[in-house]
Amino acid sequence: MTDETETGEEMHLTKGRLEGLSDGIFAFAMTLLVIGLSLPDKTSIVQTPEFAASILLSLHSDFLHYVLAFLILGAFWLVHHVQYHSIRHIDKIFVWINLVTMLFVALLPFSTSYAGDFPNVPLGAIVFDLNLFAIGMGMFLQWLYASRGHRLVEPTVKESYIRQLRYHILIIPFVSVVCILVAATGNTWSSALYMTIPVVKIAVDRIFAV
Amino acid sequence: MTDETETGEEMHLTKGRLEGLSDGIFAFAMTLLVIGLSLPDKTSIVQTPEFAASILLSLHSDFLHYVLAFLILGAFWLVHHVQYHSIRHIDKIFVWINLVTMLFVALLPFSTSYAGDFPNVPLGAIVFDLNLFAIGMGMFLQWLYASRGHRLVEPTVKESYIRQLRYHILIIPFVSVVCILVAATGNTWSSALYMTIPVVKIAVDRIFAV
Amino acid sequence: MTDETETGEEMHLTKGRLEGLSDGIFAFAMTLLVIGLSLPDKTSIVQTPEFAASILLSLHSDFLHYVLAFLILGAFWLVHHVQYHSIRHIDKIFVWINLVTMLFVALLPFSTSYAGDFPNVPLGAIVFDLNLFAIGMGMFLQWLYASRGHRLVEPTVKESYIRQLRYHILIIPFVSVVCILVAATGNTWSSALYMTIPVVKIAVDRIFAV
Amino acid sequence: MTDETETGEEMHLTKGRLEGLSDGIFAFAMTLLVIGLSLPDKTSIVQTPEFAASILLSLHSDFLHYVLAFLILGAFWLVHHVQYHSIRHIDKIFVWINLVTMLFVALLPFSTSYAGDFPNVPLGAIVFDLNLFAIGMGMFLQWLYASRGHRLVEPTVKESYIRQLRYHILIIPFVSVVCILVAATGNTWSSALYMTIPVVKIAVDRIFAV
Repeated sequence: MTDETETGEEMHLTKGRLEGLSDGIFAFAMTLLVIGLSLPDKTSIVQTPEFAASILLSLHSDFLHYVLAFLILGAFWLVHHVQYHSIRHIDKIFVWINLVTMLFVALLPFSTSYAGDFPNVPLGAIVFDLNLFAIGMGMFLQWLYASRGHRLVEPTVKESYIRQLRYHILIIPFVSVVCILVAATGNTWSSALYMTIPVVKIAVDRIFAV
Repeated sequence: MTDETETGEEMHLTKGRLEGLSDGIFAFAMTLLVIGLSLPDKTSIVQTPEFAASILLSLHSDFLHYVLAFLILGAFWLVHHVQYHSIRHIDKIFVWINLVTMLFVALLPFSTSYAGDFPNVPLGAIVFDLNLFAIGMGMFLQWLYASRGHRLVEPTVKESYIRQLRYHILIIPFVSVVCILVAATGNTWSSALYMTIPVVKIAVDRIFAV
Repeated sequence: MTDETETGEEMHLTKGRLEGLSDGIFAFAMTLLVIGLSLPDKTSIVQTPEFAASILLSLHSDFLHYVLAFLILGAFWLVHHVQYHSIRHIDKIFVWINLVTMLFVALLPFSTSYAGDFPNVPLGAIVFDLNLFAIGMGMFLQWLYASRGHRLVEPTVKESYIRQLRYHILIIPFVSVVCILVAATGNTWSSALYMTIPVVKIAVDRIFAV
Repeated sequence: MTDETETGEEMHLTKGRLEGLSDGIFAFAMTLLVIGLSLPDKTSIVQTPEFAASILLSLHSDFLHYVLAFLILGAFWLVHHVQYHSIRHIDKIFVWINLVTMLFVALLPFSTSYAGDFPNVPLGAIVFDLNLFAIGMGMFLQWLYASRGHRLVEPTVKESYIRQLRYHILIIPFVSVVCILVAATGNTWSSALYMTIPVVKIAVDRIFAV
């Protein structure tokens, strides 16, 4: 905080606080996912083992989507973490790409809950898939903007590393598109495809030799 | 933590922790906005594509307000970020102006949800606008208090920069007042005016040559 | 992280992370207070100005308690902040006093909502008062434990400062007790007494010449 | 951020941000527990002392589970804190064990609420116990992975300390298993056994002379 004050608002953006806000939104969105596992009204609860068990069973689709959404958000958080490690400074455009991405991160508890509520309607899974696709594309655009011509990344970051990260970030959006196509043909098990992500990652690493 | 202990409570306020608390409240309020997108009770859900689609459609006003509120909170967070960069130390009055501003930040999930619930009643939008106006004025007062006579800001911060930031902070409250006036005459599309903020900002920069 | 590893678990407690957890709980509890301002079910909403206005009016007691709870939590956060500034190291007992205090901080969204729901029943306000009393006494015990014989505070911290902070911390619990007594006699305006806190503080400073 | 860029993604994982994300999830999960203490709908509230008192009484099981869950999460947070103090660097496997553990931390508000809703059905307590067991085993695996052969911990950390921490971490999962067995035989007071944790800890320290 010395003479840089004079070079305008642009210079006041610090990587640290954007990281802090993003980590907060990630942590909070991951915790809020649990809201989708809603219990019935106190007054309609019956104190029998059968009723208690039926509540759990009725939530099976919500549980599946909770686990998927939590782990995928964790994977996105890791990508965010890895990206930020290479970034030297940030600018306004980068901040706004990040904020719009966070808008979709914060929306995930809604679409997870929606997908869990409609296990037998493809639209449920599609809304979930579209949300993940939007987060992934936001992450991709952010990295593309930051890394093109080493705009915001450290000069020491290698081109090969930049490309490798680009391929890795695109894996989840790619799986989302496949899920949307599978769901659009009327299948209701499309969300299970997210479990193939680790396999797809290995394949990508082989094919592109990254 | 040396002899400053003796100069009284005032001295113990550190910029870092107030920043942390504020970032936390911003991140949580932004994530809690999603609460406004409420889904119907489990028991009233019908597993048909038509029902699933109708739920999404019924939320269109909530979605619009979610996006607006998230991005405007993001803009306020940026202003907060930029302000704090110039601040050297803080005092009790500054802390309390900040806490009252945060009170309105934390209230936004309520007024966003309220506005989304009443797409056809001007009062819905007005409550939303008033909340944004209160946040904006809090931000403005905070900066006015900190920057007048360089009370809390670094001595190197230029007068022109202080004025520029004042004008910029007033843009959102100004648009809020216009929205209130438009809504008060019975229009229900007033919230769309917030999309003009980037244009207004360019105009302000031109007119005041800041 | 050098040879201190060998001196046992006790040594591994760092002030910074406890501060971080506490700030997180404070920020989140302050933001969750808004949950008390609940809107009616989507299906029971009527799109008329009268209905929209009646919703706001029915929330007047919730609003009052939201504002009180937010500002009092803000005051407690300030006390926490000021306390931690003087603390040099922490131990397990201190951590557990702090965690139990946080248990009551996290409970406040519940008792605020409860008090807001029963504007005409003294028990509503009493539950709110008891919660604030518990937070205040937790804060007091924490400071008493840390400051007695300079157990955990910096050696440079003056006895007069330690005493001054003790008196200050007791102000809110004292007002809570008065509120409980006033509510127990059947009055429903007792919560308004919290607005006298700034006055009580000035009086305490005069009387004890702290 | 120098030449390490070239050694691959693995190197970019920093202990600090994982700690921050985990602290965030701990703080939010602890605060979200309060959601389990749900109040009846505004419209069904009667403004009488009897009704207000009956609401509190109906929540007694929820209160008990709130307190237990908050304090046990606090204990797990302490374990997390102590573990991380000894860790020098992290790798991908460690991050994923941590994220899966956090998945169960974030799930606790659900199972606490579920247990509180079924005070008279053993399944309620068993779901709560299983969730705590999963968190504890996650914590244990994390420490086992990090400490075996000093894989991720500082070389100065003593073998005796590593073993001591292993025993300590297993105490809560052990109590959870006892609770499950007690609940499975039809008892509904099993959760009270968690109050024996401090006693079990002293016994473990005596028996294994750790």
